Amino acid sequence: MTLSLGLENIIVSENDISLVDGQKGHLVYKGYWAKDLALNKSFEEVVFLLWNGTLPNDIELKVFKRELSHSMKLDENIKKIIELLPANVDMLGVLRTAVSALGTENFSWPPTKEQGITILAKIPAIIAYRQNCLLKKEKIEPKPEFSLTENYLYMLHGKVPEKTHVRALEAYLVLTAEHGLNASTFTSRVISSTQSDMASAITGAIGALKGPLHGGAPSEVDNMIEEIGSLSNAESWVRNKLENNEKIMGFGHRVYKTRDPRAEALSIIASGFKEPWFELSVGIEKLILKLLDEYKPGRKLYTNVEYYAVAVFRGVGIPKELYTPTFTFSRVAGWVAHILDQSNQNKLIRPQSKYIGIIPKCEE
Amino acid sequence: MTLSLGLENIIVSENDISLVDGQKGHLVYKGYWAKDLALNKSFEEVVFLLWNGTLPNDIELKVFKRELSHSMKLDENIKKIIELLPANVDMLGVLRTAVSALGTENFSWPPTKEQGITILAKIPAIIAYRQNCLLKKEKIEPKPEFSLTENYLYMLHGKVPEKTHVRALEAYLVLTAEHGLNASTFTSRVISSTQSDMASAITGAIGALKGPLHGGAPSEVDNMIEEIGSLSNAESWVRNKLENNEKIMGFGHRVYKTRDPRAEALSIIASGFKEPWFELSVGIEKLILKLLDEYKPGRKLYTNVEYYAVAVFRGVGIPKELYTPTFTFSRVAGWVAHILDQSNQNKLIRPQSKYIGIIPKCEE
Repeated sequence: MTLSLGLENIIVSENDISLVDGQKGHLVYKGYWAKDLALNKSFEEVVFLLWNGTLPNDIELKVFKRELSHSMKLDENIKKIIELLPANVDMLGVLRTAVSALGTENFSWPPTKEQGITILAKIPAIIAYRQNCLLKKEKIEPKPEFSLTENYLYMLHGKVPEKTHVRALEAYLVLTAEHGLNASTFTSRVISSTQSDMASAITGAIGALKGPLHGGAPSEVDNMIEEIGSLSNAESWVRNKLENNEKIMGFGHRVYKTRDPRAEALSIIASGFKEPWFELSVGIEKLILKLLDEYKPGRKLYTNVEYYAVAVFRGVGIPKELYTPTFTFSRVAGWVAHILDQSNQNKLIRPQSKYIGIIPKCEE
Repeated sequence: MTLSLGLENIIVSENDISLVDGQKGHLVYKGYWAKDLALNKSFEEVVFLLWNGTLPNDIELKVFKRELSHSMKLDENIKKIIELLPANVDMLGVLRTAVSALGTENFSWPPTKEQGITILAKIPAIIAYRQNCLLKKEKIEPKPEFSLTENYLYMLHGKVPEKTHVRALEAYLVLTAEHGLNASTFTSRVISSTQSDMASAITGAIGALKGPLHGGAPSEVDNMIEEIGSLSNAESWVRNKLENNEKIMGFGHRVYKTRDPRAEALSIIASGFKEPWFELSVGIEKLILKLLDEYKPGRKLYTNVEYYAVAVFRGVGIPKELYTPTFTFSRVAGWVAHILDQSNQNKLIRPQSKYIGIIPKCEE
């Protein structure tokens, strides 16, 4: 028996889904650099890769996109359930409940890609429907000819999104689709290991992502950029923080001890766009990196994915309260890949606990 | 790094909630034999014990029961959500969705006993409301002066339950309230370790219990007793099965290599009642144990909890499709105890995976 309360030294899965190497700054999905995929492939292509192990050819991609299209609309009962949730159920709670409500007997064991399509395709519609309910805006149906990313922005904003916005958000979605055995992905594998259904596994994973120790707090980066406000204001603001030994949000990472490949890919995309928020973020980043090197030399504090996630979100008009829900949308792709992989293991994940209480003297 | 795909040799929690000793046939909750608790205490007293570490005094019990009473009714929006779920969402799916829908911001971190009360108290009403919807029967509101167990039977059957039935079901609920780090309880701890809320953790745990490798298949015992039908028919039926080397359902257990203390407690209760199903089960058990000893001497096949769970369910009139939901009801008590315990650890549960795929040759 080994005691490991956080399981940080225990390997619970061997798989070919992703490699996260924090020392080298590597992120690989199914044999491809995630960065390359983000710069060159659509979200749908990468989801296909994660679920099938190969990039789709033209016909496979067309079929896959058609299947996703067929699943994007919400049934009336799901819309009503979303409306019935009080305003103080947050968006992750709405996603958790709506995905659970999708879990009919069509989700019976074993998990399938078709089940993954059913859930993934509906996530943008669930988020947009709820958001438009809360804002008392018109509810917009997804267009079958649009991709998932186009539809997400279209349903949120009520107009056809700009191509540059779709590209930037798509790169974000690709880069955050999968990241090894984080707590939510692990949750989906534990649930799946009982031979429970995919709807249960994804519902549980959403619940885990809801926790701040996992889902993070990207809105803090947002607050920082908002406070700085302009490039001319940035140097004095950052120097002041660093001289008071305060943390600069969006820099440094638990795993990555070199450049976070996700931030790198997003910065390449952001620097190409003449969008005020992208430009401001790129400018502020350069300055912060220079000053971090001046104030904390050798500490290896690099831009992390949250910094550029916020640049993308602000650039494409995703409001603060939808940052973590948008992360959930992309991560469903990774969860499905892991659930499919776990179902091939056919092994219950069932650790031990050690009783440290009193044992009664004699048994009756 | 240690490889352990099922975590069977890894201790992930040290706690004083329960001891499961399969060699000795021991089950202890917070320093008390579960068997003693089942024979002598109410479900509410045992839930209080699991959540507080001590049995309640008269005043504490009165307060606790009043708090549960105040939470038993379903709000109208939850009733409507239950009605909106298609008939092919099974009862575990209904519980998973309804508990998720309860997860408003009142469930914000850290988890509390009050949150546990809110969820536990509503489980009987969720099950009964859905069941009465499906059967097109009158929906019955819980009575505030009734215990959880009384209300469960009352709402299901539309009449005040017999005392002997309440006692038998209560013993079952006490005996299945907690059983160490099974897959659903572990799920609740993983989710909670991200500092996610109690509603998320219990929603995820319900999803894990839904899997047949965890929730089991008590209805197979039911089918067996039904097939045997009468005591006079039993001997030839059982001999026939054993001579054909077929498995006898309800005997033998993965963990317990001696008498399952839960089956023992339930058999004591069942043998006292003049209820046809209880009597038949007690009679058939004696015969099966005698014949198992004759056909498989030394194999240590003892009556397990499922055997007597079915005796209780049939005896008190709980239909087959509600066996696992009723188990879920009792196990919520254990999940809440573990979620409260995990929240004190303040430690993310986050294992590793090992990448066994291809690493691309050179990075762009």
